[in-house]
Amino acid sequence: MTLFAQKSSSISSPNKQIILKVTVAENGSLSYQVSYKNKTIIEPSTLGFALKRPEIMLNKFQLIGVDSSSVDETWKPVWGEVSSIRNNYKQLIVKVKDKSKFENLLNIVFRVFDDGVGFRYEFPQETAIKHFIIKDELTQFNLAGNHKTFWIPGDYDTNEYLYNTTKLSEIDALKAAKKETDIAFQAVIGANTVQTPLMMKTADGVYINIHEAALLNYPAMNITLDKATFTFTSHLVPDAVGNKAYLQAPFQTPWRTIVVSDKATEILSSKLILNLNEPSKITDVSWIKPQKFIGMWWEMHVGKSNWYLEGGKHGANTENVKKYIDYAAKHGFDGVLVEGWNEGWEDWFGNWKENVFDFVTPYSDYNIDELTAYAKAKGIKIIMHHETSGSATNYERHFDKAYKFMQDHNMNTVKTGYVGRIIPRGEHHDSQWMVNHYQRVAEKTAEYKIMVEAHEPVHPTGLHRTYPNWLANEAARGNEFNNAPNLGLVPEHETILPFTRLMGGPMDYTPGFFHFQLNQYDASRSTRVKTTLAKQLALYVTMYSPLQMAGDFPENFDKHLDAFQFIKDVPVDWDDTKVLEAEPGDFITIARKQKGKENWFIGAITDENARTTTLKLDFLEENTRYEAIIYQDAADADWKTKPEAYKIEKKIVTKKDILNLSLAKGGGCAISLMKM
Amino acid sequence: MTLFAQKSSSISSPNKQIILKVTVAENGSLSYQVSYKNKTIIEPSTLGFALKRPEIMLNKFQLIGVDSSSVDETWKPVWGEVSSIRNNYKQLIVKVKDKSKFENLLNIVFRVFDDGVGFRYEFPQETAIKHFIIKDELTQFNLAGNHKTFWIPGDYDTNEYLYNTTKLSEIDALKAAKKETDIAFQAVIGANTVQTPLMMKTADGVYINIHEAALLNYPAMNITLDKATFTFTSHLVPDAVGNKAYLQAPFQTPWRTIVVSDKATEILSSKLILNLNEPSKITDVSWIKPQKFIGMWWEMHVGKSNWYLEGGKHGANTENVKKYIDYAAKHGFDGVLVEGWNEGWEDWFGNWKENVFDFVTPYSDYNIDELTAYAKAKGIKIIMHHETSGSATNYERHFDKAYKFMQDHNMNTVKTGYVGRIIPRGEHHDSQWMVNHYQRVAEKTAEYKIMVEAHEPVHPTGLHRTYPNWLANEAARGNEFNNAPNLGLVPEHETILPFTRLMGGPMDYTPGFFHFQLNQYDASRSTRVKTTLAKQLALYVTMYSPLQMAGDFPENFDKHLDAFQFIKDVPVDWDDTKVLEAEPGDFITIARKQKGKENWFIGAITDENARTTTLKLDFLEENTRYEAIIYQDAADADWKTKPEAYKIEKKIVTKKDILNLSLAKGGGCAISLMKM
Repeated sequence: MTLFAQKSSSISSPNKQIILKVTVAENGSLSYQVSYKNKTIIEPSTLGFALKRPEIMLNKFQLIGVDSSSVDETWKPVWGEVSSIRNNYKQLIVKVKDKSKFENLLNIVFRVFDDGVGFRYEFPQETAIKHFIIKDELTQFNLAGNHKTFWIPGDYDTNEYLYNTTKLSEIDALKAAKKETDIAFQAVIGANTVQTPLMMKTADGVYINIHEAALLNYPAMNITLDKATFTFTSHLVPDAVGNKAYLQAPFQTPWRTIVVSDKATEILSSKLILNLNEPSKITDVSWIKPQKFIGMWWEMHVGKSNWYLEGGKHGANTENVKKYIDYAAKHGFDGVLVEGWNEGWEDWFGNWKENVFDFVTPYSDYNIDELTAYAKAKGIKIIMHHETSGSATNYERHFDKAYKFMQDHNMNTVKTGYVGRIIPRGEHHDSQWMVNHYQRVAEKTAEYKIMVEAHEPVHPTGLHRTYPNWLANEAARGNEFNNAPNLGLVPEHETILPFTRLMGGPMDYTPGFFHFQLNQYDASRSTRVKTTLAKQLALYVTMYSPLQMAGDFPENFDKHLDAFQFIKDVPVDWDDTKVLEAEPGDFITIARKQKGKENWFIGAITDENARTTTLKLDFLEENTRYEAIIYQDAADADWKTKPEAYKIEKKIVTKKDILNLSLAKGGGCAISLMKM
Repeated sequence: MTLFAQKSSSISSPNKQIILKVTVAENGSLSYQVSYKNKTIIEPSTLGFALKRPEIMLNKFQLIGVDSSSVDETWKPVWGEVSSIRNNYKQLIVKVKDKSKFENLLNIVFRVFDDGVGFRYEFPQETAIKHFIIKDELTQFNLAGNHKTFWIPGDYDTNEYLYNTTKLSEIDALKAAKKETDIAFQAVIGANTVQTPLMMKTADGVYINIHEAALLNYPAMNITLDKATFTFTSHLVPDAVGNKAYLQAPFQTPWRTIVVSDKATEILSSKLILNLNEPSKITDVSWIKPQKFIGMWWEMHVGKSNWYLEGGKHGANTENVKKYIDYAAKHGFDGVLVEGWNEGWEDWFGNWKENVFDFVTPYSDYNIDELTAYAKAKGIKIIMHHETSGSATNYERHFDKAYKFMQDHNMNTVKTGYVGRIIPRGEHHDSQWMVNHYQRVAEKTAEYKIMVEAHEPVHPTGLHRTYPNWLANEAARGNEFNNAPNLGLVPEHETILPFTRLMGGPMDYTPGFFHFQLNQYDASRSTRVKTTLAKQLALYVTMYSPLQMAGDFPENFDKHLDAFQFIKDVPVDWDDTKVLEAEPGDFITIARKQKGKENWFIGAITDENARTTTLKLDFLEENTRYEAIIYQDAADADWKTKPEAYKIEKKIVTKKDILNLSLAKGGGCAISLMKM
């Protein structure tokens, strides 16, 4: 760290490849810039806030000091892609006093890792204004070129968009959002505003990802592009009266993160966001278990049954759920998700109604006591479903009774849902109040030793480190959009998600669809799954999650039991992960080593283009033989014309082997490598 | 009831003095009008709604039928001013279909009593639109003249205004609100908008009161005056996004009430609003008890101590509370209110902060277990205080733990408080969400057999009939405003409150101040109590409540133990009530008969003018002698110069006696009549 005369400080990453420079200019403006391998990644970008109360700008500062330090430590996640994570960074704390009459103190904490930069604002205990309201955060990300960008429209309420791939200059979020008629409720921000994680690639092959870490007690960040300068500025999600955040010193904002590498694979391996989150707040984690489940869910989506009791097609009836329990037990799954089990479904969708569900009243044809006993006898956990209808106030009023009810019925995992407009009315899925709500859910479920995954929440930011019972989230367009009638999904989608949505944490993507024409129960549907069957298998490896569903339903699995074997075998917790090859929008190949065992599993996927690739198995152990089962697209497979065409090959391999894989259009390949 | 050719229907009150006429005009507009003793009280006034979703007007109708019926029944309140109440009315249900494409069904239910009219809208189960959002209610009250009016400014968040007395044409709510610098947070609506209960008097001596009854799942009504026609139109309190109410058929709005009489005393005796509320939803009411209490409260207001632990003047410490418990036991009170007992007070006022109090964590100097045992041994109940800081969401999250905590500590009454801006942010004290919140509090406390009184809530509307555990509310400028530095209180205030605020239900006015210069503990204060001491006593009779505080603190009571005897004697529950004389803004004299006993108590108060009056005791029982103790202003008493001057006279009286009373300026007289 060097303190220059012009009041600049700089630090570099442990490997010296990233250099961060922070400057307080004569006029008081505070900026940072980032280079990677001598290339400018972030041009000078200013920092600060506009406050609503008191109504002042916090963007002209006087430097009062800098602290630097470094950390190199290793920690073990409760579950994850790897068994231990190195946290190695140089830290620079820039301490400033703002030039308003209040002379507020503000620290900006920068951490520079080998794989990127994180920084956040700290309002220290001693700052002048104790209670304050954020009107706008003024953080800039001034990019050095017109990069190729993978983006979705900025939105206060939904992140379930299809990704757009354009140059920065071609971003048009309004136009993109307008096409998204599959999304029931949007709150789009503007033509130049996009969501994070935002993935970019420079003309000379550097990958840059912008996001945030440890989003707590603060609204989510969208970012707005100035196309004249390729500068993004943070745009926080407002509350009901247009304010962004109500804060009290001491306070630390979420980290703003910039992950950077000239290898796409290193973007996917980055643990920067996890490293910027706090360690687990839960001390006894013995009850937290990654898990694999099937569920009463996709049969509703495709019209075989429905969530409602009215209409005579109620899926979640006692007999039907027993069949799922039987099937889960027979095939070694941990749980069965049951949607539509409780009263209220007839009367909520789109109504912005506060008191819909009470989370404890089963439909009359759902014998919960009988099913509790039945599931227990079979060694299966029923996964609770708490659809909140977006009414978070109502859900919070029922927290204790709902979680007690789960305990009483031998359930320890809940899928929450936030479909519809949020109540408190005027709040958004991504505003501070709801960010606090999701945290309350994580904390309250932990009190009851319940694991949770949220659907339709704010984008994840690595909080599963701090709350390891918060296993996964949806928070993006999931596999279910294969059944959406308009834009739906596209074959490249799963090659982008790990570079965007998954940067923040695991996704409940619900792979494992084994039937592709979705008119099986409703001839009027023209929707279809946009992958091959082999790709559905590969997703269990390429889309990391400690909570994996086998999305389809038993009668479809039964048609392909040989392929289903991969889903039965694939673990949900890992000791190691090797991202073998990756290019956002094109392909991803990942190998992972099973937790506590010597078995490896490989997933390889491609976009709409067929692809051949050669995998060196040199990551395997020396002098060890593995039985490889290779689940791959058949020669004539094609997501559009012949998605079910797959072949399964078994052979013995060692680390000296090379596998030549052929992936069909929209295809993939899944491989299990069992130590012999 | 007669159905005219021009589609008009009319009904009259049981005594025929009030006639209501409802007309559906050729153009579809629906209106009602009211006459009393052949005088027009309400000129033709239209009815209807503007909806936000679907975006249509519901104000042009086709008449599809009328139903008429009558009821004459008597019911017994759990507690009250009288032991039984007659509910005697003629009912007219006007059934219409709206002329929008939806052809919504709507019923308007009118009930005509001898003391006024109530009507409400019903959206029947069969109506076309099941879920709808109210943009505006279009109910009119078209008055027949430029009446004398007792009003406070329309406001979404506070009803703690001083009353203004002007002609309708002279209402200027903005100007009045601007003077109200004693109120920390206002949300004034407009120059011509005022709150209900609104009290009026016509030039020829008819008293008219407009309010609402049974305000449930709907925002409070303010009313906006068109000065050209003296027509008020309802103005509902909006939510965070500007909508008024989210409803689902079947739904009934609150009743709109018009109480009318040419005798002011009959306005005060009216049970119309209670009669329009539903019977008790609580079946076992054995645990609900009217009560009288003292409390640790006024000593904070006058600066003897404070709510905060910081600063060394914390009132609610163990020793101090024991002294109150001792005093309550010695003088026969039921309870001791303790404010400032729990952590959080240092850090909330004005901060719009969500998570302040947890309602279960005492300050370190408050030994709750010791005090629980101490109070129990003395036969005293500690009254819980739940200041919510306006953060209703936070309170709701703590409901169960907070009420369980009360049970565990032998408490069964809670005073709630809503000081500050409401959270959910953008909601108001009087918006639909908060109306539902107060109901949730009433229902949740009932589950725990807890009685409740709310401070800073929406205006009461007779819901204490339905929720008899909801004993009282503040919801107006209380006795505490004697300590407010600016407008504060005025001597006429208590002669107006029974005609306005108390029409909706009991008020926790906290009478019983025995010291008048409020600079006892803080010489910088110039505030003073604006009554005589005798008037403070009389308020226990004139301001009906089943929950009465003796507002001052022990050392001040001890200076006037002879006068304090009246507070000790006066009951809080009654078998009968006679309003002997009354004129809003001038004077009130009321006699009440103790519940289950033959004793009577009389309160007489005046405004800033001295007053002599003659009371006939002919309401007393035949052939019975009573020991009368007359607590009255001394000859030289004056609220401004000699408020403590009182004299106490004892004599034997019978129903043949006449008492000549002299009330000082700002004075009063209290009389106990104990059967001998």
